[in-house]
Amino acid sequence: MTAADQNHTRPDGRAVDELRPITITRGWSRQAEGSALIEFGNTRVLCTASFTEGVPRWLKGEGTGWVTAEYAMLPRATDSRSTRESIKGKIGGRTHEISRLIGRSLRAVIDMDALGENTIVLDCDVLDADGGTRTASITGAYVALVEAVEWARREGHVKREAKVLKDSVSAISVGIVDGVPVLDLPYVEDVKAETDMNVVVTGSGDFVEVQGTAEGAPFRREELDTLLDLALSGTAELAQIQAETLRGERA
Amino acid sequence: MTAADQNHTRPDGRAVDELRPITITRGWSRQAEGSALIEFGNTRVLCTASFTEGVPRWLKGEGTGWVTAEYAMLPRATDSRSTRESIKGKIGGRTHEISRLIGRSLRAVIDMDALGENTIVLDCDVLDADGGTRTASITGAYVALVEAVEWARREGHVKREAKVLKDSVSAISVGIVDGVPVLDLPYVEDVKAETDMNVVVTGSGDFVEVQGTAEGAPFRREELDTLLDLALSGTAELAQIQAETLRGERA
Amino acid sequence: MTAADQNHTRPDGRAVDELRPITITRGWSRQAEGSALIEFGNTRVLCTASFTEGVPRWLKGEGTGWVTAEYAMLPRATDSRSTRESIKGKIGGRTHEISRLIGRSLRAVIDMDALGENTIVLDCDVLDADGGTRTASITGAYVALVEAVEWARREGHVKREAKVLKDSVSAISVGIVDGVPVLDLPYVEDVKAETDMNVVVTGSGDFVEVQGTAEGAPFRREELDTLLDLALSGTAELAQIQAETLRGERA
Amino acid sequence: MTAADQNHTRPDGRAVDELRPITITRGWSRQAEGSALIEFGNTRVLCTASFTEGVPRWLKGEGTGWVTAEYAMLPRATDSRSTRESIKGKIGGRTHEISRLIGRSLRAVIDMDALGENTIVLDCDVLDADGGTRTASITGAYVALVEAVEWARREGHVKREAKVLKDSVSAISVGIVDGVPVLDLPYVEDVKAETDMNVVVTGSGDFVEVQGTAEGAPFRREELDTLLDLALSGTAELAQIQAETLRGERA
Amino acid sequence: MTAADQNHTRPDGRAVDELRPITITRGWSRQAEGSALIEFGNTRVLCTASFTEGVPRWLKGEGTGWVTAEYAMLPRATDSRSTRESIKGKIGGRTHEISRLIGRSLRAVIDMDALGENTIVLDCDVLDADGGTRTASITGAYVALVEAVEWARREGHVKREAKVLKDSVSAISVGIVDGVPVLDLPYVEDVKAETDMNVVVTGSGDFVEVQGTAEGAPFRREELDTLLDLALSGTAELAQIQAETLRGERA
Amino acid sequence: MTAADQNHTRPDGRAVDELRPITITRGWSRQAEGSALIEFGNTRVLCTASFTEGVPRWLKGEGTGWVTAEYAMLPRATDSRSTRESIKGKIGGRTHEISRLIGRSLRAVIDMDALGENTIVLDCDVLDADGGTRTASITGAYVALVEAVEWARREGHVKREAKVLKDSVSAISVGIVDGVPVLDLPYVEDVKAETDMNVVVTGSGDFVEVQGTAEGAPFRREELDTLLDLALSGTAELAQIQAETLRGERA
Repeated sequence: MTAADQNHTRPDGRAVDELRPITITRGWSRQAEGSALIEFGNTRVLCTASFTEGVPRWLKGEGTGWVTAEYAMLPRATDSRSTRESIKGKIGGRTHEISRLIGRSLRAVIDMDALGENTIVLDCDVLDADGGTRTASITGAYVALVEAVEWARREGHVKREAKVLKDSVSAISVGIVDGVPVLDLPYVEDVKAETDMNVVVTGSGDFVEVQGTAEGAPFRREELDTLLDLALSGTAELAQIQAETLRGERA
Repeated sequence: MTAADQNHTRPDGRAVDELRPITITRGWSRQAEGSALIEFGNTRVLCTASFTEGVPRWLKGEGTGWVTAEYAMLPRATDSRSTRESIKGKIGGRTHEISRLIGRSLRAVIDMDALGENTIVLDCDVLDADGGTRTASITGAYVALVEAVEWARREGHVKREAKVLKDSVSAISVGIVDGVPVLDLPYVEDVKAETDMNVVVTGSGDFVEVQGTAEGAPFRREELDTLLDLALSGTAELAQIQAETLRGERA
Repeated sequence: MTAADQNHTRPDGRAVDELRPITITRGWSRQAEGSALIEFGNTRVLCTASFTEGVPRWLKGEGTGWVTAEYAMLPRATDSRSTRESIKGKIGGRTHEISRLIGRSLRAVIDMDALGENTIVLDCDVLDADGGTRTASITGAYVALVEAVEWARREGHVKREAKVLKDSVSAISVGIVDGVPVLDLPYVEDVKAETDMNVVVTGSGDFVEVQGTAEGAPFRREELDTLLDLALSGTAELAQIQAETLRGERA
Repeated sequence: MTAADQNHTRPDGRAVDELRPITITRGWSRQAEGSALIEFGNTRVLCTASFTEGVPRWLKGEGTGWVTAEYAMLPRATDSRSTRESIKGKIGGRTHEISRLIGRSLRAVIDMDALGENTIVLDCDVLDADGGTRTASITGAYVALVEAVEWARREGHVKREAKVLKDSVSAISVGIVDGVPVLDLPYVEDVKAETDMNVVVTGSGDFVEVQGTAEGAPFRREELDTLLDLALSGTAELAQIQAETLRGERA
Repeated sequence: MTAADQNHTRPDGRAVDELRPITITRGWSRQAEGSALIEFGNTRVLCTASFTEGVPRWLKGEGTGWVTAEYAMLPRATDSRSTRESIKGKIGGRTHEISRLIGRSLRAVIDMDALGENTIVLDCDVLDADGGTRTASITGAYVALVEAVEWARREGHVKREAKVLKDSVSAISVGIVDGVPVLDLPYVEDVKAETDMNVVVTGSGDFVEVQGTAEGAPFRREELDTLLDLALSGTAELAQIQAETLRGERA
Repeated sequence: MTAADQNHTRPDGRAVDELRPITITRGWSRQAEGSALIEFGNTRVLCTASFTEGVPRWLKGEGTGWVTAEYAMLPRATDSRSTRESIKGKIGGRTHEISRLIGRSLRAVIDMDALGENTIVLDCDVLDADGGTRTASITGAYVALVEAVEWARREGHVKREAKVLKDSVSAISVGIVDGVPVLDLPYVEDVKAETDMNVVVTGSGDFVEVQGTAEGAPFRREELDTLLDLALSGTAELAQIQAETLRGERA
């Protein structure tokens, strides 16, 4: 990061490598086996984890579990109301893409054998969208997932000693705005970013997903490197917040 | 109400004619022109009102406005996860029915000429379902609607002096459980009710909708009368809570 | 009913509490286990009852039966042609709502244990629509249902002594037109009704469904009472016509 | 036709070249601009013709009209109930195929310039299906079409002197059953026919459509010739019945 | 054929009874059990045959096999791009109709008992469309089918001695253009044909399907006869090309 | 790359940094404005570019053009037949995701102002799938796009001097298989890759898209770097092949 970047003024006054205020409210949903309401600034996503015994037909008898995710936005999570996908009668490409990303990200830290023939579905419903909804979803879904696994252990659906979660996982967006690489973009930065990247990282600091897109000009190798540095610092911080939340050390 | 009814013990200890704790949080959604998070006990519904200029094609040039509603449940608002209607690719009959009911109920208190050629869409998304989601939706949507009309007046989309809202409107469920007529049924009472009725009433105490259904045995004329009495007492209370909320007299 | 109401002139010259000419033709369909072509004035609905052994998966092994209904309109049952729902690729809200109403109404008079693990599907296809199609459907479907149950008894699918039908059921529309409560509204009255109510009543005179809607001004308790009186007189007459039809005492 | 064929016994006792009893009831539908209930033995099809001013977008400004058709079956027109296509959410191949056939058949006798920029939609709804529903549909739809054209002439939508109909059109099924060519197959013959052919013929005796299908063994040129002879005799008779019906010479 | 017909000049200079250059490339697809890329002039269709053990549920335990077909066009097989049916979310009537025709045509030459409880799906994807795509599909699909049956015999899925194919099958279009009957119409002739006929014929010269349609004026019996003569000469030639291709006598 | 990696034996004998044989056949489709059949080893994709005047409604009057893409697989492009998405009635998530990726990749090298109010749709239909279908699609679609732009210039739809293409673009897959980073994975390597990355790069060597996914274990920063090196060497080679193809220097 150059000195110039350090002087870059962001719309909300944050430093280029600073996260928005992060809040994770565990157990927000009364009915789900696991749940978390996660906030990245104004972005609010309700993540629930639904645990059921059994697996989809194509996995039966394999002795391993399944974890999948569905992402959706409330119609008025955005500035102007969008038509419900249930009304349109079909799921849009963006929704599909994000649901698949969330599912892959969480499967990366699950030991499916330890989970046994059980299924966990993660629902991430965006109540308020201000950029970074997919990375907030992954970060919050991890907390809901941990709760659901704990529930399953208490209820005897998975063995007491089974190490179902191999690591934690969180995600953050980074991007190049007005030529400056920045961390955790709100909507106003997102729409003008030349490059937009979502990075999913384990608690150990390894990559699960790197999805970088040139929205404007193609990006150079050095820019890519800087963005990855920013992302790793952000996900390290998120991993700590997740851990504190799960230990009950945060409100 | 007979003395016997007065002694009837409800699962949550309420009197037969007592509402669950009602909470209405105005302005819960940052982006909508009007919004309210309404709670009837554990039932939580996020109601947003989206105001747009213009009307559907079939109303163009009539000089009158349009108000419509869409109801939906988050997949894990219920005890066991339900498949999203967007995934199924079609809206179920129950969803259609409730969306239409909410729309009709709010149109009953709107002066469409005073609204002018503008459209308000009410979205009622159930975050947690414990019975009475449709009546909570109507009651909360009214508050969101008032906010949206106020917004439109401030922004000059409707005339300062136009009396867009002719009255307030709220709704409550009543039913016969174990032979006893009761007010505001949570899920555990709802599933065992012999008769289930949803009643929509204006602030002046007139009926907008009366929908009574014999789930078990058909109901007698006297039972219907008792249920209507209960409903009118409940909606009177709700109308007062709405008014206090809108005057800012409640937290 | 006031003297003024008695003097009210209806478009077709009927008294306010007078049904349109009712015709029920049993066995109209050659192939169904039960069928009736019912006419309420110009409104014509073909009701068929299809009996099949077995029940939907979620009922298997319970020892009880299932009755459900589907309502539809031919595209040119109405004044201007409507697009087929099969072409649209989805069922509209109104169709869903009416199908569900018909199903609930008939289930209210069926003893599901006596029916055994058998399913009866009632199809109500409107050939000509002049108001009151849902109430004609219920009234006609009951006759088709009786035929199907008799067929099932003859064929040995239900026990000879089983009392499958607990009561009869019929339905009628009532409404307030130009301030006057009237019975059995044809289309021209229906479109201008301030209040529209559909009432489903057993042969014993108890309520199965009461669905009242303020299309214009909300309605008062006294108006509701008058409408219910009208409805009960209408359904009593319909119950008699059903009985005579089933005894073969009507052409 | 051989002597042996003449001795062939059909399930309903008809001669091999004999039509079932044909009944055409004009004006069966109160609301459509043209309508006919047509019966070929037990097969009953309600045909309505809906006239509207204007044409689909791709024809606008060409000065010519449009005629199209939609075919459907009521769910219980058949021996066992079939699922509604509206419920399935899609039109089946058979329905598409028959709708297209009916539309082409009627367009063949319409002078689109004489019709002017107007559209006629023919709906053929099968109330009872006993074989030959597509040919009954075409034959009945022609009568409904004539009525709609007459209506349009009376109402001034087409010029008084315009010769909109160039000829009449009717259709019949023929087939080879147990090696014997027969005319107008009911369901019991249809299912066992080795070859099945539907032939659409103008009043002048020219072909509009010939659709022959080997259901079992392929058919020889001579068999094809015999089937065409049978079909031409059948359609000649149908053309006469249509003419008598339209002149009011039949009940 | 008259002398005048012989002098008729076709856009591509062919004689009225002359096929376009026909090319069949066997085994074009690396993965399918059988495949052929067939070209009728510019028309190119990729036909694949997929063999799977087992049959659809409704055929299970009958000991007989099943053959079905699906036809589709690439979006830019035509002069202007057409919207994909997958994007539209539904299959069009034309696609359904042609898929069904291909399936019926091939089933006509298959001995389902000899095939045993196995299924073959024929996919005919039009890569370039210049008229006659359905007849090219049938002709090419037959070659793919033979390959798949040979594969199944080699792999032991059908008995070595089983005579699965009873005959060969091919198809050609014929039509009346400017009053002259012609064989194998490319797009430019097809759009102006007064009559259009597709004829499916076995190697033995018997008919499987005859589908003639008057696009303009109805056609006379003599015209039909001439068209059938043309079609039989074309399919005889195609049958020879198929046989040579399968014997490896053509490049 | 370590010496160990150099010794890694791939299923097809290639070096770890070696592309499969690449073939691009320009102008394969007779009807499209631009087209290319591209082969990466056994993977074969037909890419067509359809040019139309005008833009989608939301872009009208902006003076800029639009480029979009649709990806699909023939049902038997794969080892076992997959159901057509047109039959399913909906587009799958994977298809959506890839279509969006191709569209974004090509838009990155288009100057939309220079294109003017014109639309180019790229269709990438996979005829044979052996891994890398999305990267082959992007690489081939670029060639089709160039042809369509040249066509539009010749036809006067874009200005002679307009520099519509800012750069070339190609794409390649890289991955970690058995711990070894490799370039251009065929299906057999793809299914066992621990990490799978698709990289889209301009002719100048800058990134348009980087999409890396840990299918098994998360990947380390150094692994990511090695994969990017491999990808850049591959895309440099592809860019040269594209250029030679467009200059007509390759067969």
